[in-house]
Amino acid sequence: MDKYDVIIIGAGAAGLAAALYTTRRTLKTLVVSGDMGGQTATTNDIENYPGVDFATGPDLMDRFAKQAKKFGADIKLAWVKSIAKSNGDFDLTLHDDSVVSGRSVIICAGKKHRHLDVPGEEEFANKGVVYCATCDAPLFQDKSVVVVGGGSAAFDAALLLSKIAKDITLIHRRDSFKAESILVEKAKQETNIKYLLNSSIKEIKGDAFVNSVIVNTTDGEQELATEGVFVEIGQYVDADFIGDLVDLNESGEIIIDTFGQTSTPGVFAAGDITTVPFKQTVISAGEGAKAALAVYNYLLGRDPGTNFADQGYVK
Amino acid sequence: MDKYDVIIIGAGAAGLAAALYTTRRTLKTLVVSGDMGGQTATTNDIENYPGVDFATGPDLMDRFAKQAKKFGADIKLAWVKSIAKSNGDFDLTLHDDSVVSGRSVIICAGKKHRHLDVPGEEEFANKGVVYCATCDAPLFQDKSVVVVGGGSAAFDAALLLSKIAKDITLIHRRDSFKAESILVEKAKQETNIKYLLNSSIKEIKGDAFVNSVIVNTTDGEQELATEGVFVEIGQYVDADFIGDLVDLNESGEIIIDTFGQTSTPGVFAAGDITTVPFKQTVISAGEGAKAALAVYNYLLGRDPGTNFADQGYVK
Repeated sequence: MDKYDVIIIGAGAAGLAAALYTTRRTLKTLVVSGDMGGQTATTNDIENYPGVDFATGPDLMDRFAKQAKKFGADIKLAWVKSIAKSNGDFDLTLHDDSVVSGRSVIICAGKKHRHLDVPGEEEFANKGVVYCATCDAPLFQDKSVVVVGGGSAAFDAALLLSKIAKDITLIHRRDSFKAESILVEKAKQETNIKYLLNSSIKEIKGDAFVNSVIVNTTDGEQELATEGVFVEIGQYVDADFIGDLVDLNESGEIIIDTFGQTSTPGVFAAGDITTVPFKQTVISAGEGAKAALAVYNYLLGRDPGTNFADQGYVK
Repeated sequence: MDKYDVIIIGAGAAGLAAALYTTRRTLKTLVVSGDMGGQTATTNDIENYPGVDFATGPDLMDRFAKQAKKFGADIKLAWVKSIAKSNGDFDLTLHDDSVVSGRSVIICAGKKHRHLDVPGEEEFANKGVVYCATCDAPLFQDKSVVVVGGGSAAFDAALLLSKIAKDITLIHRRDSFKAESILVEKAKQETNIKYLLNSSIKEIKGDAFVNSVIVNTTDGEQELATEGVFVEIGQYVDADFIGDLVDLNESGEIIIDTFGQTSTPGVFAAGDITTVPFKQTVISAGEGAKAALAVYNYLLGRDPGTNFADQGYVK
């Protein structure tokens, strides 16, 4: 069994940036992830990753992955079932019960999409109920759809759909939005986006596919004909493999310090799964790089925050 | 006098990423900087900014700047002389005694290059003594040069010069290096890089231009003929305008919390000038984005760490 210097769990912005930094420090690095690209890869248009004027999420994450591989990162598509400490090292059991072993771990497993938890949602998942607008929007050409949520993800989905679908109804439980104002303003310029505020979906109905939603509105219950329900209401941590390995906050986020250190020596974390606020691609990438450099220090027996720049600038 | 929502001091990775994020949140944003691109712009080859396989430092920073301008950032080439609080806002006096005013400030002024402080250094600055290898290396075609330092910046300079100069002597006061191992290994493959360890420059000599250095070595003093002295021994904070506006640590770095908040409400900081370790372009960019989102919250009277993702993922 190969022993890695570091095993990175998750292949989103944080995990792949961490892998780029650990490999450039010549650490033997394995990235284990059930999917590639994390949340960024589910985004359509990215215009706010500094230095990249425009990219689709999957394209940007593909570049991250290629760059990490170029410097020697191994990337393995696998789910982690559990992590066991073993003489200061860590044994990770994967979904197929194979085991990989590392001297340190960086957890960058991100978050999962929150569901509405209403009747019909599970039944019609992938039959009209969509959690990844980027992936599935093109299937709704000239159709009527609803988007649920009031954050940037909801507006991102609505804007994308405004170019594809016939009309979009954005259903939001409040009458104000937390989305980036630039997105809200852009959406207001689209004539095929309507709004149903102070409202929430009670049920999703259909035959083979979704054909309507029952909505609780301020005017009472109403049935709205629709062929697509885009659920964009937030995310949560889904990482049972963590067990009691490290301390979490009440939202299940991993508590880290400035260097990405968790409560357990040798286990670091970065990105959406941590207590760092503002879930953004560039912030996750920066946090991944920080954790990677802290791991390098840790493996050398140094203080994790040793600054490489004190003898010349580290670019 | 225009009042800005936020004035960002410094146009390196942190400042320009912050400007991208404040403008996308529709904050009226001014970037004030004495130069463009900060330390990143003095770097030759950048291969470790995730998502950008390869770029020169100036190119990458040019992309950052264009992106911030695209969303409406004003960028002004000017030095800041002082900052005064004014009824909860901030008045910045510039080098020409003009004043700009903002509701908040993000300090991203970075660091300056450390000097050797030996006889001849000042006299021969820009006459053979170089602090920016990227800028001046091409002037030393087929010449003998020395590089001073043992960090990544020194190795970055040596590697660049190995393709241009006749030979390079790397002078370092220790016998081990803090540079990224990948750089050290690459340098060892270059036959025209020599090493003078446990040694330091005592004096720089020349006529119109540098022609030799006096070096203290373990074998005593020796004179080394050279036409270029590349000084790559680290950096320091040079921001007198800060005065007692915010708390600093003993290195003069601005003490910040997770959200880029300083000890003074309304004043935020990000990047190399702060206590965040690991001075890297992607880390500075992430920190700039964090501070920008915290400023947005601050201006709305919210807790600076309010997470935009709780109602849908903010990409």
